[in-house]
Amino acid sequence: MRSFLSERTKNTGRSSIREILKVSKKPGIISFAGGLPKPETFPFDDLAEAAHKQIGKNYRQSLQYGMTEGVPEFREEMIEWLSNFGWKIALDNIIATNSSQQALDLVSKAFLDPGDVIFCGLPTYAGAIQSFQLFQARSVGVPMEADGMDLNALETEIRQVKKSGQRAKFVYVIPDFQNPTGVTMSGRKRRKLIKIAKEYDLLIVEDTPYFGLRFEGKEERPINAYDDDGRVITMSSLSKVLSAGMRLAVVVGPEDLIEALVTVKQATDLCTSTTTQWIAAEWMSHHELSEHLTQTREHYRKNRTVMLESLEKYFPDDERISWTKPEGGLFIWVTLPEKVDTDDLFSEAVEGGVAFVPGSGFYVNGGGRDSLRLCYSVLQPDEIEKGIELLAEVVKRHLTAESRG
Amino acid sequence: MRSFLSERTKNTGRSSIREILKVSKKPGIISFAGGLPKPETFPFDDLAEAAHKQIGKNYRQSLQYGMTEGVPEFREEMIEWLSNFGWKIALDNIIATNSSQQALDLVSKAFLDPGDVIFCGLPTYAGAIQSFQLFQARSVGVPMEADGMDLNALETEIRQVKKSGQRAKFVYVIPDFQNPTGVTMSGRKRRKLIKIAKEYDLLIVEDTPYFGLRFEGKEERPINAYDDDGRVITMSSLSKVLSAGMRLAVVVGPEDLIEALVTVKQATDLCTSTTTQWIAAEWMSHHELSEHLTQTREHYRKNRTVMLESLEKYFPDDERISWTKPEGGLFIWVTLPEKVDTDDLFSEAVEGGVAFVPGSGFYVNGGGRDSLRLCYSVLQPDEIEKGIELLAEVVKRHLTAESRG
Repeated sequence: MRSFLSERTKNTGRSSIREILKVSKKPGIISFAGGLPKPETFPFDDLAEAAHKQIGKNYRQSLQYGMTEGVPEFREEMIEWLSNFGWKIALDNIIATNSSQQALDLVSKAFLDPGDVIFCGLPTYAGAIQSFQLFQARSVGVPMEADGMDLNALETEIRQVKKSGQRAKFVYVIPDFQNPTGVTMSGRKRRKLIKIAKEYDLLIVEDTPYFGLRFEGKEERPINAYDDDGRVITMSSLSKVLSAGMRLAVVVGPEDLIEALVTVKQATDLCTSTTTQWIAAEWMSHHELSEHLTQTREHYRKNRTVMLESLEKYFPDDERISWTKPEGGLFIWVTLPEKVDTDDLFSEAVEGGVAFVPGSGFYVNGGGRDSLRLCYSVLQPDEIEKGIELLAEVVKRHLTAESRG
Repeated sequence: MRSFLSERTKNTGRSSIREILKVSKKPGIISFAGGLPKPETFPFDDLAEAAHKQIGKNYRQSLQYGMTEGVPEFREEMIEWLSNFGWKIALDNIIATNSSQQALDLVSKAFLDPGDVIFCGLPTYAGAIQSFQLFQARSVGVPMEADGMDLNALETEIRQVKKSGQRAKFVYVIPDFQNPTGVTMSGRKRRKLIKIAKEYDLLIVEDTPYFGLRFEGKEERPINAYDDDGRVITMSSLSKVLSAGMRLAVVVGPEDLIEALVTVKQATDLCTSTTTQWIAAEWMSHHELSEHLTQTREHYRKNRTVMLESLEKYFPDDERISWTKPEGGLFIWVTLPEKVDTDDLFSEAVEGGVAFVPGSGFYVNGGGRDSLRLCYSVLQPDEIEKGIELLAEVVKRHLTAESRG
């Protein structure tokens, strides 16, 4: 069988995180491993009504093939929603996709030849790493700081790549409550990143799955809103705010780049489900997503706070141990003493009744073994406290054993 | 901008058929150009109920992320439906995809390196050509006969490719009521194709979008049902029978090949919409798709017959003009005298108030210019007769002008 596989497929492993998620689902385990939104935060009753109406009455459109660009009514609603983030978008600048993961696939397909270089955070979203890998690109990691990617390090890396004659294509960033760190990029760095992209003739691929999930602090405008040179492509997903199962996102960018995505999407799947696009458009035309998210944000804020307080309460008082304090999104990132390998720690944690995602899966350079990702989205506050207590015990035991060993 | 594009994208044009479809939509034109199913044949009222129930009550699954393999309940229903075609399938042999077009994308992605060779009909489905092209494969065309692909010609082509040292990967076929010709492959040829695949160590990619749309003649078993060597991958879509807008299909094949598709699908879009999978599973658990299709088949049969009768009645009595007589599906294929170029004829036809798809778009070798595809799915019988009358006039005028010129 293997002789039939393409090089790109031989090159692409199954996501290690998926395997970890399987283990985490064992009964009795408190799992901080998944990255799932809480389905109770979705407006399921109103979506059910919207679906009934759209499928029953508008079947000539909602059950039929549609434009590759996406249903115009859906795109218009997305434009209105995104205007909340200080950003004007025209209909020709937006294409509907089956989630942001497909957007990553289309971007990789449209722009990456084998050996092309992209730049991404250390750490960054594992699904993006997989997508770039599938298209045989070389991903160059750039350290993350408390206010987003280290842009000096980025420039150094870019110069080195350019000097070596490799073709650099884009910088991939998740500016708000990054997966996996929860870190948000400052406004200053957003503007600076545009300058760097211009100077070195690169695109910026901006991934914003947590738009609308800021529960604290000041909203930052998307990097795209600062773009005056047609270099930024932004993915905006409904998976965390309206429904993950409908698989809906849009990509926003300069017309010529969106055109390229339309061309490859045509050959990829003709069009995104018109059924789910019409359901979402129906719901959005009668409801304000930002208003609906008031409760969702409150839910995530509360869980985040419980997790931070529990970390404070149970984790050992050790200056080598730290964690991020996200202002939105679903994740907290914990850094442990350097000698700890969280891949090993994972098995001990599962035995101890708690699960997380080891950091290494988010690193393109083999690093991150001293870190781990915690997700606070779906659990009850008391489960979060209990889980962190268990995890703290595992960490303490591990550190004691190590210092003895 | 162009400097950012990947080689594969520079290589891939927009579908010329899409451009033709735009022109065909001008008001007042009777269009045989599209290949759309008739939305009135979809069970929209019952689907609306199913959607209401699944989204309202089962939102924890229907609005949440799902397995990359697809929702098991949906796959079980598809297995039951496909068992009608004399075929036993286990759950590990089936993956849900966003329509067959995505299945083509996944197959190309998993199996094709640049320069790899695939074999396909002359003519064949244009969307498949686009997909293979996007992955920089070389598509070798094999003439179609009245009972399917010319397998002697196929063997000659395979030998030539092998001799030249190129890597051949698979044969792509649409065995039932092929798009665009309407031709069905005989049982004898299905069995023979398996033998050829074994002999030359190739896979077979079987595309069956018109399963369930046979309105005449004896049902043929899928090629996959004859496979005793793990070489056949079959795509089966719901787009023509339950809803095109839900974008649902499955791929059935040997476990190791399905595994490869799961791996690439993970990086491609994580999973197919759980929302539409649950809606389809709900509907299918309460209804027999084959029973529902009784009316659909009757509708298509009637339209096909009207089109054949009209061709007989209005087209010039010229032995150089012929057309196929499909026993199912949506298309009739017309061959005109060799000197006619249907790309030119198209503009004359549109002026004359009727549209079709010129044959060249379905040929990987630049041929087919004397042929055209007619779709009879969505029109009323009187429109079909009128349209064929108009087309016949255009053809006659064209032939007269040519013989004078």
